[in-house]
Amino acid sequence: MKSNNDASSINRRVLLSTLATLPALSATLLPDTGLAQAPGSVLPSWNDGLAKQAILEFVRATTDPSRPTYVPPEERIAVFDQDGTLWVEHPMYTQVVYCLERVPAVVEKKPELKDVEPFKTVLSGNREAMARLSMHELEEILAATLTGMSVEEFNAEAKKWLETAKHPRWNRPYTELVYQPMLEVLRTMRDNGFKTYIVTGGGQDFVRVYAENVYGIPPEQVVGTAGGTKYGYEDGRPFLTKEPKLLLNDDKAGKPEGIHLMIGRRPCVAFGNSNGDREMLEWTDAGSGARLMLLLLHDDAAREYAYGPAQGLPDSKIGTFTQALYDEARQKGWIVISMKNDWNEVFPPTTVGGR
Amino acid sequence: MKSNNDASSINRRVLLSTLATLPALSATLLPDTGLAQAPGSVLPSWNDGLAKQAILEFVRATTDPSRPTYVPPEERIAVFDQDGTLWVEHPMYTQVVYCLERVPAVVEKKPELKDVEPFKTVLSGNREAMARLSMHELEEILAATLTGMSVEEFNAEAKKWLETAKHPRWNRPYTELVYQPMLEVLRTMRDNGFKTYIVTGGGQDFVRVYAENVYGIPPEQVVGTAGGTKYGYEDGRPFLTKEPKLLLNDDKAGKPEGIHLMIGRRPCVAFGNSNGDREMLEWTDAGSGARLMLLLLHDDAAREYAYGPAQGLPDSKIGTFTQALYDEARQKGWIVISMKNDWNEVFPPTTVGGR
Repeated sequence: MKSNNDASSINRRVLLSTLATLPALSATLLPDTGLAQAPGSVLPSWNDGLAKQAILEFVRATTDPSRPTYVPPEERIAVFDQDGTLWVEHPMYTQVVYCLERVPAVVEKKPELKDVEPFKTVLSGNREAMARLSMHELEEILAATLTGMSVEEFNAEAKKWLETAKHPRWNRPYTELVYQPMLEVLRTMRDNGFKTYIVTGGGQDFVRVYAENVYGIPPEQVVGTAGGTKYGYEDGRPFLTKEPKLLLNDDKAGKPEGIHLMIGRRPCVAFGNSNGDREMLEWTDAGSGARLMLLLLHDDAAREYAYGPAQGLPDSKIGTFTQALYDEARQKGWIVISMKNDWNEVFPPTTVGGR
Repeated sequence: MKSNNDASSINRRVLLSTLATLPALSATLLPDTGLAQAPGSVLPSWNDGLAKQAILEFVRATTDPSRPTYVPPEERIAVFDQDGTLWVEHPMYTQVVYCLERVPAVVEKKPELKDVEPFKTVLSGNREAMARLSMHELEEILAATLTGMSVEEFNAEAKKWLETAKHPRWNRPYTELVYQPMLEVLRTMRDNGFKTYIVTGGGQDFVRVYAENVYGIPPEQVVGTAGGTKYGYEDGRPFLTKEPKLLLNDDKAGKPEGIHLMIGRRPCVAFGNSNGDREMLEWTDAGSGARLMLLLLHDDAAREYAYGPAQGLPDSKIGTFTQALYDEARQKGWIVISMKNDWNEVFPPTTVGGR
């Protein structure tokens, strides 16, 4: 309970300091006028509170041409981390699950890998041993499972896998375990002329397979960790084949670098949930004019997960949100969203019978 | 004269074979109905001819939902080479001129470069010797002149240079030496729901400085040769600094690779003018559904330049369009635009008094 109360009392201070940085805003929040959606229909899964108010007030402040905080439409760039910000990242990144599940097929084609680590561990099915695999070993598996496929083969296979794979806790497809409140934020941003981008440490090609259907974000607005491809021909027909070469490691400092490479302008809105998003929020924050930076705190073990270790939440290898990042957010006026307090729904209703 | 006549008779054959690949099209061209612009106002700088008709018919065929060639809006991706396709590339790429003109300032900061090649040659001002510099030497100059600048410094400097630099032949700013007929194509495409991208062998950051003002193409729709950047801090403020590391060599096979990296879908329209665009046109062509591939032939020494060596035009280190590419175009049904025959204007009217 302590951490949630702290999160919410911090939110209040953070919001007030954010509002203070927006010129020509009164300290009282304005009513819901001027938004491109009817009031009441905007962000229904968000509880009334400082996070929701900050989002709505930012949209009003940047889209009303009579206000000094107005942002011209072409500059309205909003970036969103994916894992842990738009969908569930625990107990394991979905793309890692995908790669691990491809290992048997890879080993069938290359039997010499069967007795070689880390493939041996993966084939053993021992979940505890698999959870101990290092980042380097996971990258080795990633390279082995994806290299040499044509980009079309990759897309078709990943799509097929996503249609049947299910999250072990909810027994629902991963693509349904997206955060309903964030879908509403994406829609509100787009309805008000913002271009929404995913900026993810995950694989760019993987996220592009479903981002358009799941989030309404087209492939060209997905920036992620990207490997090279190689152009060549097969029977005179051109192919692009995935290569093991890493072009962009889109995590931590790689996020602003990736934003510069792929977007070429500084965002004015950034949502994240972990230390991997710190530099992206700093880069967004350092621009001029109205800015909005938010971090989602996973403090809801009952409805999703609670991990941190900000505010004393348990540490975890995935989605680390340190107390130091929490303090930076507080100091800089970034909003910390408490999943437990700020959201009245976590996931979209199931298609069969609701929740 | 021979080459121009050839180009125009080829165009006819090429167009007919292209039309044959579009399902459900009659061999006669349809009237100008169904376009998002009023007939007559569309492509006014294009002479009536097969290239203009092919462009207009393609737009009609892909935007009319009742036709089997219809392309949904999200798939309407049109890619354009820049140098020699959207603006003048002779006698030297504009960005190379920019980098050469920065050399004195670089040498002032690093005097040890003064007597070292290729800087010595550049400082000599000997244009003939400069024209003989190899690609490798030009890259060395590029790296030396750009590395270590923050992305904001680079943008500000390049913008300032473009405001005053003038093309030696016309004594007009480079940004005015864009092809009026291509501005009309860009507009027509966008008016009909196509997302227009530049895919250039030139520097991505350089082209992004002016593409929005000059072509109406925002930075996030410019794909080009790109170097790395490095995220860091100065007095606590985050900076992105340009690095000498090459991330994407966006030329030849690098163009489809760059399109996959930055856009993530296959275009259905591609315009180019040289062998550097061959793979981009092939990649576009190899997709399913309606396609449009065009190559601009510079055959107009009077109004612009004539170089090739397709159709016996003089060879040149810049913008090489070989007879082999010409033959591939003919065989695959790509349209070859004759600057001399297909365009009634080359450049936009000057602001002072028209042309």
